[in-house]
Amino acid sequence: MRTELTERFGIEYPIFGFTPSEHVAAAISRAGGLGVLGCVRFNEADELNTVLEWMHENTDGKPFGVDIVMPAKIPTEGTQVDLDSLIPAEHRAFVERTLDELHVPKLPGEERVNAGVLGWLHSVARSHVDIAMEHADRYGQIKLIANALGSPPKDVIDKSHEHGVQVAALAGARAHAMHHVDAGVDIVIAQGYEAGGHTGEITSIILWPEIVDAVRGHASVLAAGGVGSGRQMAAALASGAEGVWMGSYWLTAAEYKLGSTGDGPTTIQQALLDATSHDTVRRRIYSGKPARLLKTKWTDAWDAADAPEPLPMPLQNILVSEAHARISAADDASVVAMPAGQIVGRMNAITPTAELIEDLVREYEETVARLGQTVVERSPA
Amino acid sequence: MRTELTERFGIEYPIFGFTPSEHVAAAISRAGGLGVLGCVRFNEADELNTVLEWMHENTDGKPFGVDIVMPAKIPTEGTQVDLDSLIPAEHRAFVERTLDELHVPKLPGEERVNAGVLGWLHSVARSHVDIAMEHADRYGQIKLIANALGSPPKDVIDKSHEHGVQVAALAGARAHAMHHVDAGVDIVIAQGYEAGGHTGEITSIILWPEIVDAVRGHASVLAAGGVGSGRQMAAALASGAEGVWMGSYWLTAAEYKLGSTGDGPTTIQQALLDATSHDTVRRRIYSGKPARLLKTKWTDAWDAADAPEPLPMPLQNILVSEAHARISAADDASVVAMPAGQIVGRMNAITPTAELIEDLVREYEETVARLGQTVVERSPA
Repeated sequence: MRTELTERFGIEYPIFGFTPSEHVAAAISRAGGLGVLGCVRFNEADELNTVLEWMHENTDGKPFGVDIVMPAKIPTEGTQVDLDSLIPAEHRAFVERTLDELHVPKLPGEERVNAGVLGWLHSVARSHVDIAMEHADRYGQIKLIANALGSPPKDVIDKSHEHGVQVAALAGARAHAMHHVDAGVDIVIAQGYEAGGHTGEITSIILWPEIVDAVRGHASVLAAGGVGSGRQMAAALASGAEGVWMGSYWLTAAEYKLGSTGDGPTTIQQALLDATSHDTVRRRIYSGKPARLLKTKWTDAWDAADAPEPLPMPLQNILVSEAHARISAADDASVVAMPAGQIVGRMNAITPTAELIEDLVREYEETVARLGQTVVERSPA
Repeated sequence: MRTELTERFGIEYPIFGFTPSEHVAAAISRAGGLGVLGCVRFNEADELNTVLEWMHENTDGKPFGVDIVMPAKIPTEGTQVDLDSLIPAEHRAFVERTLDELHVPKLPGEERVNAGVLGWLHSVARSHVDIAMEHADRYGQIKLIANALGSPPKDVIDKSHEHGVQVAALAGARAHAMHHVDAGVDIVIAQGYEAGGHTGEITSIILWPEIVDAVRGHASVLAAGGVGSGRQMAAALASGAEGVWMGSYWLTAAEYKLGSTGDGPTTIQQALLDATSHDTVRRRIYSGKPARLLKTKWTDAWDAADAPEPLPMPLQNILVSEAHARISAADDASVVAMPAGQIVGRMNAITPTAELIEDLVREYEETVARLGQTVVERSPA
């Protein structure tokens, strides 16, 4: 395939695959797309460094990207104790009570996950940027840095450009896209309401062309939210996007083993395989901002009449971080806490990443050929 | 253009335009699409008869359709008094208070709109069907009967087929589409979350291919919700739909003059021109079922803490029918009560219907040509 972005990135297909799994990210890049490694799970810069080395060794020199969560507004910094003190006791009690009611065991031993995901924090995200730039210089494979929350800070954009790295940012509304362009981003990821994770109110079919029109001449657009087949990829490119950004789609990749304890689908994968397009909800309970999640007993609990209002970012994520760890360890598909888009209804088999890409491209090409046949010479007026 | 549905209906473009305006419906059919006249506003069969005669005289022999609201479950019938007695005083008081607060004048004279929209009721919808079948026999132009609420009753489907009229039904979920197919409908209108009027939770980009796959071999699919440009029409056909069903798009057609008191845009049109894609809400306040409406002071009032829960269909519509009449007469764009999809953000000019269709087709053809250029010979593996 050829679009402006395949040329710019030297990739075979304009398929940008976001995933927290280095195994999946590498497989996407090897198969001709651009794997984008989600970095929010790395609390320590060393961990990220090790994984990026692994990416280098497993991508045949192909380009890839990193996704770093840099909130547009610098959140409250300070020691963990400072942030903890901002969480109301009522909220902590609700989480404890809910986990008990859902029979989610405590973590073994004295282990306590009280750190939240530090990757949300400004200082940690900056260290991720530094590591990524070192790797960009060392191997020349890191070609994209993406930010899921608002426009990246100007110095990060400038620094990325100095290192030959393009900058992308997610937008759920036209106004956000315009802000990104003003900040100097190269690529706007237009992510519709149906997407997994953070989303706005406007759906993909509306949002994609709206943002394409808004940023034309200033940035390219990747279409996100609702892409899980070649037909949907054709719909995305029809909108004027130069490629697609997909996240949920890779969660049932065979190489995705995060949280796995053995062979076969992981607990999270089993929950995803079982879900229909109706089995997601968009709630503030994951991070403090509206994010689409798989509907489970955990999300149901937060919908109950006795549930407190979720806290603002980053406090909500700190509040639920131990719960997320306990839920992960619990191995119960009915209590999963997992971002997932409405596309989850199409995710019905564990499939190798290369095959996932091949499926997309084959159906895309079939779709374009079929559309070509709908156009006939106009009859004279 | 050519799709299975252009061939079946003998139309130039697979553009099915739903509108309560006979002027717009006729213009759509004249321009090569299929105009579908919304009949819910006709409380008397004679009114519909007169309008269908006008349609015949103004469509150059081209095919057109009618849209009739036949609830899947037969709602409570009875005298107006019976239905009125089911509406709580609290609700009536809220509506009166709200209209006063929004400075919506009472209707002139002793006029009282207490009938609700009788077109919602089973017996009235049946009389619409009878009139439509008479016209189908008389002129052979009525080729489609569509139902916005559930599967039409089996005898209506059988009768339509006897008269050479195809039957379509809206679906916001896969399960509804399967039910329509079991009932014998010919065309499923897959309408996503972003659509104006009644919608489900699943967005168009997800819903369209899901329903196409579900009903393949049993029914054709029209894609609805979020189509307001040729790019979006290409996205719809990419999904496997054989055509598009558009509603909101025609509300700013130059021929649309319902509720008009003079030249220039009507009050409703002005409200639509001013709205962005963010200016809709999906609420039960219009009919009792979730429907997407233009966000105005009227919808805001129902979102306030003191507002009652909307009533079930058909009571909610009866409750607000006088309010709707008062709001229409008030001529205040900030208090409009109007179904509209998120596509309203693209509706920024009053445009003749023929030009609206020409714009769609031109951009569609450009889009298909552009997509064709993205497909290149694959490099050897």
